[in-house]
Amino acid sequence: MQKKGCPEEEIFSFLSFARDKDRKYDKVLSSMCTIPHPVAVRAHNMFIESNLGDPGLFAGTAELESLLVREIGELMHIPDACGYATSGGTESNIQALRIAGKQARRKMPNVVVPESVHFSFEKACDILSYELRTVPCDGNQKIDTSVLEDYIDKNTVCITGIAGSTEYGVVDPIEHLSDICSDREIFLHIDAAFGGFVLPFLKNAPKFDFELDGVSSISVDPHKMGMSTIPCGCLIARDPSYFKSTEVETPYLTVQKECTLLGTRPGGPVAGALAVLRYLGRSGFEEIVGKCMNNNRRLIDGMADLGYEVAVQPDVNVASFKCENSPKGWIVSRTREGHMRTVCMPHITEDIIDEFLKDVSEINV
Amino acid sequence: MQKKGCPEEEIFSFLSFARDKDRKYDKVLSSMCTIPHPVAVRAHNMFIESNLGDPGLFAGTAELESLLVREIGELMHIPDACGYATSGGTESNIQALRIAGKQARRKMPNVVVPESVHFSFEKACDILSYELRTVPCDGNQKIDTSVLEDYIDKNTVCITGIAGSTEYGVVDPIEHLSDICSDREIFLHIDAAFGGFVLPFLKNAPKFDFELDGVSSISVDPHKMGMSTIPCGCLIARDPSYFKSTEVETPYLTVQKECTLLGTRPGGPVAGALAVLRYLGRSGFEEIVGKCMNNNRRLIDGMADLGYEVAVQPDVNVASFKCENSPKGWIVSRTREGHMRTVCMPHITEDIIDEFLKDVSEINV
Repeated sequence: MQKKGCPEEEIFSFLSFARDKDRKYDKVLSSMCTIPHPVAVRAHNMFIESNLGDPGLFAGTAELESLLVREIGELMHIPDACGYATSGGTESNIQALRIAGKQARRKMPNVVVPESVHFSFEKACDILSYELRTVPCDGNQKIDTSVLEDYIDKNTVCITGIAGSTEYGVVDPIEHLSDICSDREIFLHIDAAFGGFVLPFLKNAPKFDFELDGVSSISVDPHKMGMSTIPCGCLIARDPSYFKSTEVETPYLTVQKECTLLGTRPGGPVAGALAVLRYLGRSGFEEIVGKCMNNNRRLIDGMADLGYEVAVQPDVNVASFKCENSPKGWIVSRTREGHMRTVCMPHITEDIIDEFLKDVSEINV
Repeated sequence: MQKKGCPEEEIFSFLSFARDKDRKYDKVLSSMCTIPHPVAVRAHNMFIESNLGDPGLFAGTAELESLLVREIGELMHIPDACGYATSGGTESNIQALRIAGKQARRKMPNVVVPESVHFSFEKACDILSYELRTVPCDGNQKIDTSVLEDYIDKNTVCITGIAGSTEYGVVDPIEHLSDICSDREIFLHIDAAFGGFVLPFLKNAPKFDFELDGVSSISVDPHKMGMSTIPCGCLIARDPSYFKSTEVETPYLTVQKECTLLGTRPGGPVAGALAVLRYLGRSGFEEIVGKCMNNNRRLIDGMADLGYEVAVQPDVNVASFKCENSPKGWIVSRTREGHMRTVCMPHITEDIIDEFLKDVSEINV
């Protein structure tokens, strides 16, 4: 640390230089984040100093958090939802597993997940000392229900289904999981971090949320397809008592107890998320999600025309291809099975898809 | 969720109404957060879409994170520090305990902490299934070294010392803890979430950082006395190999592995924290911290003049008083022992202190 401070403009010219090394999103087909909506950025700034870790102090922001949870809850078919704004899918998944474990109270808890599960479950189980049981997927990259029951036993505290998987963009047979969990009284957590702001705006989307009786909790990220600023996830649960189990006492704060994983929590992204929900409304989201799905289809069809078949048919705006080489200058990712994987976020336009397809067509020329 | 979107101005008038319900910081003497520095806000906005969860995509922001860790490391007497930007003290403490456990590999791990420890340690031990052993404090609210050794055994994976406790603003005898931990080869984590940006700028401050050989890791929060935007904590460690132990593989990202607790991580607060460090320099921080300490002293002396003695002499800008009633219109907090507790953050001025003292003097009139 320098003894004397630097002039502001010198610092910002340095930061600007660093910013230029970040990728702009226009040729990024790998990320599940996107450019935040301008309305989210404006709202974020209005609440830049707001700390939800001290909700008595920031009573107005805390109300916005409650409204956000309620509005997302309504979207997920539970009008009296409880929950809170997290830092994202990882925290939501950790907390859901934690709650599930506390409900079931087993000495050697295990969690049953599809092998397509996000790597945050590996973290969560490492932290919580749970056994992670990964069920193979079927040919469509969905949890294989024909073998699922072999993985469940009396120490299974949670089953997880994915609504919009990270690698293949598919939705597990959640109605089936819901039936199993209802019958066996097992906590069912749905990871809809990505799909939670896609599926509600599609016609004939598979069921994944609280309209299914067996679903206990859902992770959904406003900072992905909700176009909020990061960090903004949301953990929504069916039963308010779930959150009692993770409470600690909080002396010296304006409230008595805290159920969250983290302490200080930014209010800005929460205000941003709520502002975008209200600004766009259902019709606005339908339009944006519709465009993303159309672009995803345009990409899948275009790749097929070039001889690269889609690996599986996705349910959301993610696609995977049997294509070994990636075009230069583009950021795509690879699934664990080696497929090229793309995500058509709102920053991806038809023109970008066409440019990408042109570059793919020239890979081997 | 409404079918149709709302006009932007209607939304912002609603948000503004909510914002007005938040407390302004001027009469808040309870918080360890403050109004972020304008330079931090400007830098935050420049990196508003930046996601450190995908550092290959945001290579420039990732460089800023490395610089932040290095600069904080230098401040903490370790020029080649390793670490990362967390969401705050809670995450830093969870990760430190996790790393300590993985280093020691005990079946029934316990963590030895002073009873003055922040409640995040209770969360961390609940999550990690560690036994939390709280050592009583002496009359100065510091860990009682005369009984400390009774709490340590072969299953102790970590001892924690606090550099600037939340309730009383004192620094544990960390040199002593360092000697014990060096002798017994136990991981020593220092919670300097608050004091980390105070103690380095004071003359004759007690030693608390890596200049003591036994210190393994330090938690320090730029979003507290570092005046960055929230969320910005930092976990700094002596040995880079520590972070290997928390790594998971990250398919479909631009990097192969991730050692952090969370996934998506905002780059904005990191850019903000680095910008403030550079803008103020050591002399700027010395000035701000000096003012906070002077105000803290002014408050302590003024309260003594009113007949309210300080409960213990603090080492940082926190104070506690034997004063049962709180003046109306002010936010102060209460320690678990019932003392009035205040924090003189940078938003607290001499005039505010004087106004507070005047209101205290009129409590029983």
